[in-house]
Amino acid sequence: MPAPFDVAAVAALGGERVGWQHKALPPAFWGRTVDDIRADKPRLSALPTPLLTLSATGLEHNVATMARWCADHGVDLAPHGKTTMAPALWAAQLEAGSWAITLANPFQLAVARAFGVSRILVANEVVAPIHLRWIADELAADQDFEVLVWADSTRTVELIEAARAEYVAADARPLDVLVEVGGAGGRTGARTAEAALAVARAIADAPTLRLAGVAGYEGALAHDATEDSLDRVRAYLRDLAAVHLRLQADNLYDADVVPVVSAGGSTYFEEVAEVLGPLGARGTRVVLRSGAYITHDDGIYRATSPLGSQPRTGGDRLVPALHGWARISSQPEPGLALFDGGRRDFPFDQGYPEPQLLRPRSAGESARRVRGLTVTALNDQHGFLHFDPDGPVPVGVGDQLRFGLSHPCTAFDKWGLIPVVDDPDADDPVVVDLVRTFF
Amino acid sequence: MPAPFDVAAVAALGGERVGWQHKALPPAFWGRTVDDIRADKPRLSALPTPLLTLSATGLEHNVATMARWCADHGVDLAPHGKTTMAPALWAAQLEAGSWAITLANPFQLAVARAFGVSRILVANEVVAPIHLRWIADELAADQDFEVLVWADSTRTVELIEAARAEYVAADARPLDVLVEVGGAGGRTGARTAEAALAVARAIADAPTLRLAGVAGYEGALAHDATEDSLDRVRAYLRDLAAVHLRLQADNLYDADVVPVVSAGGSTYFEEVAEVLGPLGARGTRVVLRSGAYITHDDGIYRATSPLGSQPRTGGDRLVPALHGWARISSQPEPGLALFDGGRRDFPFDQGYPEPQLLRPRSAGESARRVRGLTVTALNDQHGFLHFDPDGPVPVGVGDQLRFGLSHPCTAFDKWGLIPVVDDPDADDPVVVDLVRTFF
Repeated sequence: MPAPFDVAAVAALGGERVGWQHKALPPAFWGRTVDDIRADKPRLSALPTPLLTLSATGLEHNVATMARWCADHGVDLAPHGKTTMAPALWAAQLEAGSWAITLANPFQLAVARAFGVSRILVANEVVAPIHLRWIADELAADQDFEVLVWADSTRTVELIEAARAEYVAADARPLDVLVEVGGAGGRTGARTAEAALAVARAIADAPTLRLAGVAGYEGALAHDATEDSLDRVRAYLRDLAAVHLRLQADNLYDADVVPVVSAGGSTYFEEVAEVLGPLGARGTRVVLRSGAYITHDDGIYRATSPLGSQPRTGGDRLVPALHGWARISSQPEPGLALFDGGRRDFPFDQGYPEPQLLRPRSAGESARRVRGLTVTALNDQHGFLHFDPDGPVPVGVGDQLRFGLSHPCTAFDKWGLIPVVDDPDADDPVVVDLVRTFF
Repeated sequence: MPAPFDVAAVAALGGERVGWQHKALPPAFWGRTVDDIRADKPRLSALPTPLLTLSATGLEHNVATMARWCADHGVDLAPHGKTTMAPALWAAQLEAGSWAITLANPFQLAVARAFGVSRILVANEVVAPIHLRWIADELAADQDFEVLVWADSTRTVELIEAARAEYVAADARPLDVLVEVGGAGGRTGARTAEAALAVARAIADAPTLRLAGVAGYEGALAHDATEDSLDRVRAYLRDLAAVHLRLQADNLYDADVVPVVSAGGSTYFEEVAEVLGPLGARGTRVVLRSGAYITHDDGIYRATSPLGSQPRTGGDRLVPALHGWARISSQPEPGLALFDGGRRDFPFDQGYPEPQLLRPRSAGESARRVRGLTVTALNDQHGFLHFDPDGPVPVGVGDQLRFGLSHPCTAFDKWGLIPVVDDPDADDPVVVDLVRTFF
């Protein structure tokens, strides 16, 4: 079996020289390679603020926990790689047994191909001829490469087939296409079983395409873990399963195809396994696409993950494995301090950073938990921190704060090189790795 | 007089090879240099979506307009470089006569130093020893380099002086520090004249520092152009001017210092020139720091700039010089279409993208203005477009849309290489340049 990624290409990331273009690294490190720095094991206190860090033990725990959970539930995992866009983290997910990497668009697919990822689920419609032809070239160039894309209308199938028909060789491998099923008020996806069946028939009839299964994204239909939301998600997943069963009954899958049925962000994977999991017993591959689990968070996913603060499934809980760090730069009014990180450093689309830990400026003082501090706004390069103006002053100019973050996707995309620390709770964590992202 | 930036370093950006890591460029361009592509003048239709583009004529117009406006109003311009983080655009601003480049933090300062920018206003408190020592090294290494930083408390001055005192040579040039004056409810900045005076005295008394002027940011106090907002801004600016006059009266400036008084984002530069401009007649340098003017926008700055859609000063109006492009990927319900760009491609913190122009998929159809389309949400990699479900269907899968954007700062930071087109209104614009950013 070929390796699921290009081991040498991922290892070669360690040879990259860091410099002034990497905001996580101070002048003392410029000109050295990632491998040099990794070997040196510098301390967090040697790095500047603002900063994003990952937790080595946290990443390892979450990757292993999710792999085990999927194995226990009889589903495959194709973790959504868009979360991190970090080939080294995709490699860890593949080494832990992931069936494929999921990506959102052709740019992300190109990054994955540069690192030899051999099976990729593009969880999206791809309709531009420029992209469809490049995918055809990749399929032709590497017989071990497998890719699956989505279609949610017959028009989409026509566009894909038209771009391929005038381009690919007569003996080219067909492109695997999943029918996307959506829910009313949701995002993409055919809205009725009849519409989905029409799409499936169009795929099955298109000379250069192959019907490969059914997919959808339940996360577009709800955003919390209330019973109402869970019921809506389950109803949608039952509709999705019904489409697949109908395609099987109508013999629309080729005999040599193991159809894929895929759903699952990082909020409803328990419900996905519950509703879709039983399909796996009948010659179907059930594929979860959760991505954010790899770092989990201290915001939206802590609140909503089945393995978060209100668990609704068995197994180890996920742990937050990414944090922001910033320094107090000003304390201009009672009850207000400003810090040196903003909208370009930390995610803000699913809630503001959560102050957690204070590393006082004074040498010899230990890091300590903080309470009563609230981030109330982020500007481009500043953060606003409010506290009780009549109480003791909890922070001072020069102190560092650690923040819990909400929404890993919009944390990763602000950092090209992210330090990994051994223990984010330590007084002065050790930097054990640097993770490169591509956005 | 030395060049205000390193011409060779900026030109060398043209030698960079593009590849799969640049999401604006399709496979046909990978392996070629920026200069190669510039020479080829490809069409926009050769590039993928999602995409951010700049307008060559728009940039040129805005840079010239703002330079002329500042000259006419007797103020200097130190454009805020954080907006673009693009050395080639900073170079254009410096060539147009800008006095300095403004930046927000030490990382941005390091990028500017890599391109030899010789005078930099850091519009922020810098308190980390690691950064203060690097700045000291830069000052020691290059006698032509000038940098100014801010302080808004005596504690901040102590921290800066402590980090420098134990590090710099006895004959080192002093670090120029501006007293930052803030307004109640604002961001950083000393809140009272007495507090600001104490900071100024601390700077003047610190052996390795030099009092260089007074600064502030009126944009933290208001967000629109109502009379109430303008009055609040003017009152704050008068307070700021009063601090400077008091420092002059108290002889706190060294005799050889031309003090700097600085304010001005991209919303209130008319009011800044009106209130602070007259100080220029008394041996003071009045410095505006507007940054977003270089691209202007179709959102917050169109609405609030003195040279926007409701102009409140003389001179040419600014024109929007950045746009987003995306492709319709799905049309799953009446009145709803999805496009292939999201939160990681387009700014969303000051309003959603505005659909402006349709480039139909069918060959031979011209680009045309669109109305009645509204972006209602962005996910990480998808956009939601709503229209009248009972009217004619205005877009189809495969069509491209051009969007006006709101807030250039959070547009630039999502793109490492940005195509510049000759005319964004053309049926198929010509790509005349690629601008590199560093975030």
